[in-house]
Amino acid sequence: MSIPSGANTSIILRLELDKEAASFGRIATAISDTGGDIIAIDVVRTEKTTTVRDITVNVRDNKHSELISATISKLSGVTVIHVSDQTFLLHLGGKIEMSPKYPIKNRDDLSRVYTPGVARVCMAIHDKPSLAHTLTIKRNTVAVVSDGSAVLGLGNIGPEAAMPVMEGKAMLFKQLAGVDAYPICLDTQDTDEIVRIVKALSPTFGGINLEDISAPRCFEIEERLIKELDIPVFHDDQHGTAVVLLAGLYNAVKIVNKKLEDCKVVLCGVGAAGTACTKMLMAAGVTNIIGVDKAGAITRAGKYDNPFWQWYADHTNPEQIGGSLSDVIKGADIFIGVSGPGVLKKEDVAQMAKDAIVFAMANPVPEILPEDAEPYVRVMATGRSDYPNQINNVLCFPGLFRGLLDCRASRVTEKMKLAAAKAIASVVSEDELNEFYIIPSVFNPSVAERVQEAVISAAYEDGVARRRREKVQS
Amino acid sequence: MSIPSGANTSIILRLELDKEAASFGRIATAISDTGGDIIAIDVVRTEKTTTVRDITVNVRDNKHSELISATISKLSGVTVIHVSDQTFLLHLGGKIEMSPKYPIKNRDDLSRVYTPGVARVCMAIHDKPSLAHTLTIKRNTVAVVSDGSAVLGLGNIGPEAAMPVMEGKAMLFKQLAGVDAYPICLDTQDTDEIVRIVKALSPTFGGINLEDISAPRCFEIEERLIKELDIPVFHDDQHGTAVVLLAGLYNAVKIVNKKLEDCKVVLCGVGAAGTACTKMLMAAGVTNIIGVDKAGAITRAGKYDNPFWQWYADHTNPEQIGGSLSDVIKGADIFIGVSGPGVLKKEDVAQMAKDAIVFAMANPVPEILPEDAEPYVRVMATGRSDYPNQINNVLCFPGLFRGLLDCRASRVTEKMKLAAAKAIASVVSEDELNEFYIIPSVFNPSVAERVQEAVISAAYEDGVARRRREKVQS
Repeated sequence: MSIPSGANTSIILRLELDKEAASFGRIATAISDTGGDIIAIDVVRTEKTTTVRDITVNVRDNKHSELISATISKLSGVTVIHVSDQTFLLHLGGKIEMSPKYPIKNRDDLSRVYTPGVARVCMAIHDKPSLAHTLTIKRNTVAVVSDGSAVLGLGNIGPEAAMPVMEGKAMLFKQLAGVDAYPICLDTQDTDEIVRIVKALSPTFGGINLEDISAPRCFEIEERLIKELDIPVFHDDQHGTAVVLLAGLYNAVKIVNKKLEDCKVVLCGVGAAGTACTKMLMAAGVTNIIGVDKAGAITRAGKYDNPFWQWYADHTNPEQIGGSLSDVIKGADIFIGVSGPGVLKKEDVAQMAKDAIVFAMANPVPEILPEDAEPYVRVMATGRSDYPNQINNVLCFPGLFRGLLDCRASRVTEKMKLAAAKAIASVVSEDELNEFYIIPSVFNPSVAERVQEAVISAAYEDGVARRRREKVQS
Repeated sequence: MSIPSGANTSIILRLELDKEAASFGRIATAISDTGGDIIAIDVVRTEKTTTVRDITVNVRDNKHSELISATISKLSGVTVIHVSDQTFLLHLGGKIEMSPKYPIKNRDDLSRVYTPGVARVCMAIHDKPSLAHTLTIKRNTVAVVSDGSAVLGLGNIGPEAAMPVMEGKAMLFKQLAGVDAYPICLDTQDTDEIVRIVKALSPTFGGINLEDISAPRCFEIEERLIKELDIPVFHDDQHGTAVVLLAGLYNAVKIVNKKLEDCKVVLCGVGAAGTACTKMLMAAGVTNIIGVDKAGAITRAGKYDNPFWQWYADHTNPEQIGGSLSDVIKGADIFIGVSGPGVLKKEDVAQMAKDAIVFAMANPVPEILPEDAEPYVRVMATGRSDYPNQINNVLCFPGLFRGLLDCRASRVTEKMKLAAAKAIASVVSEDELNEFYIIPSVFNPSVAERVQEAVISAAYEDGVARRRREKVQS
């Protein structure tokens, strides 16, 4: 099994051809010889000595595309300007756009939405600032803020390169929950500066989704913003994953007939996501959690420079079990991996308690491959879309922010996250539930709806909803 | 003539009624007695002792609406929660939204626009940063940045209250020129901070439109950003007005058969907009400009703390004519007002040269009303939509940024602004041109197109266009 890569698709080769030296026949032959199908040829421009053409070719996969490109670039008089495949074509000019909600048809419209009529709306907000939530896009808008320092598994690739991810996220926000999300990629990685900037931007937004900011800066940034802003701030990489993990576990323990609170949990990879997952589990009542990282199992006996590890030493491992992953995994009910590929061995899984649950969420290659773990585990989940039970935070953030905006919540609470996890789990009904279906599809429309409702209820219970709850009667 | 205020429209009164004390009959009678027509009644919610209702009423204008609201609020047991008119209703939830350009229909789509497929696009940008202009929304996106310090004629109303103006501007950007503009209202008025923030935001955007930032901070902010960013930065309040003013003047002098360069110009109101207009006129070849402000005509003899005035003293008034507006206006060909209501008297206009041109652009009340000036002027323009010849910067910014984005310009040049002014003027053809039609309507689709073309040509001439000029052949 491999990562899906846009199989059996078409690419566009933009070639600059020297009129004298290049032969189109040779190019066509080269493409056929490598197994490519030419679909179309377009002339982009012709100049004195050169001509630029777009050649659209059907290919099998990325490797095939690379082979064709490499073969052609060796022909005399041919320069490959660029190769666009479907994925690149979908990104041309960006994936989102800003649209007016209605056209300005005439003078009268113009005088209402712009000067002079708009002045009365401005003054109404000036007189009563909370009206910004009603009369501006703040009502429905979330900033997706990144500094490009920890993008996907790609690392510190910077703000420009992070944009496609944030745009994709904005698409999902809108399609799945009607939330207007706006990507903001910042050209700074200074904690203080990011905090200052997000605070300064906050008048426009009803919520802040922090994304792909590296640890430990992400914690301080989130913590300070939560304290200083009156709109919800949510670092999705931490809490989104934690919520969806918990949703999966709620359903997994149902299958094996265990109580989550009674389970022994071993978590591998004590970093940002791992700590957030652990806090979520503790909020859900789990007490017996053992963390393992490069230093082995983390115990109170250890002295750790790494702040996550120290926090872990202070708050987990009640029985103070030390040793390697292989040592502490004995008898564990649940393994949670947020570490790296292949960390968990078959022999380790074989030592787990009966009806073992393994969530191996490292991406793209999990801690153990499902086919390897299969003989020993009862329920298995990964972060990948090409296995059953994908732990994907797309299940959380759209409905979460939908709910936050609808009740005008001032912050995200623990109760909301627990409620969101239960809501996600609830989409899989008792009679649908089985080892290969513990978590709903990201395309299931009930997910966002249930999360939204759960978040709104929790917001009112926690007293952080600032919108009067209206019981509409018709 | 008064400012249009949404005449003959409907309002919605949201009333909280004490079930015991309030009588709906009395409310209905009160509304009829003041001349309002009840169209609909909706129950919003009922509670133990109160009920909340929306009453939709046809009214004549804002004053009528206020009268009704005031009358009703005096009735016993009635609380007016709020009054919404058409203008307010159009603003509910904001005027713009973010939309995906296409739906994510299935797993395959998801894997292209988001993880894992998006990673290849991210890395392509990481390897070649200029691809951000091609593969992200930077290609077509402008930030409309304000700090809310000088909004319309309303003054320093702050970022939340400024939002409706910026949203309106974003609507115009999209409708008139297909530009995706995003409003960013900043919760800081510190010059250094604003510069730092806009720089940090710049990876997302292909251009920056500064808006409604008070002088003199607006100059420093614009100047520093132009120096430090590689995308165009344009303070619309200054330069947009200047471009459209010049467009109007190009056509006005045609009517009176004068050469713009030879005209004696008196400008009243030497501030941000006035200085920008003056620089634009000088770039267009005008040399004889006299500025007048509270200190009277500005001459080299004066010593001015106000930096605009000092700049004016150093650069204008070649004959060093001093005195009051009434003194210096004698024999002037053109009066330009960017000051306040009623500053220019009939007697002043009477002293101007034959075929006087008066651009009285103070808003909402011009330096002289057209009906007062009429006997003495040949061509008259104002900033208002309810007189002929409105100088409205909506004529400039959409086409300007369309052109800037299309050729990937790194900055706005003087040549572009002059070209834009000529382009706007050119939309009014020779045989259409007359005293009451020197400037096209903001709804004329040719305006943005011509400005766009003119800006692109100027960008290539000035060498600031970074996109290869492609001659598409089919």
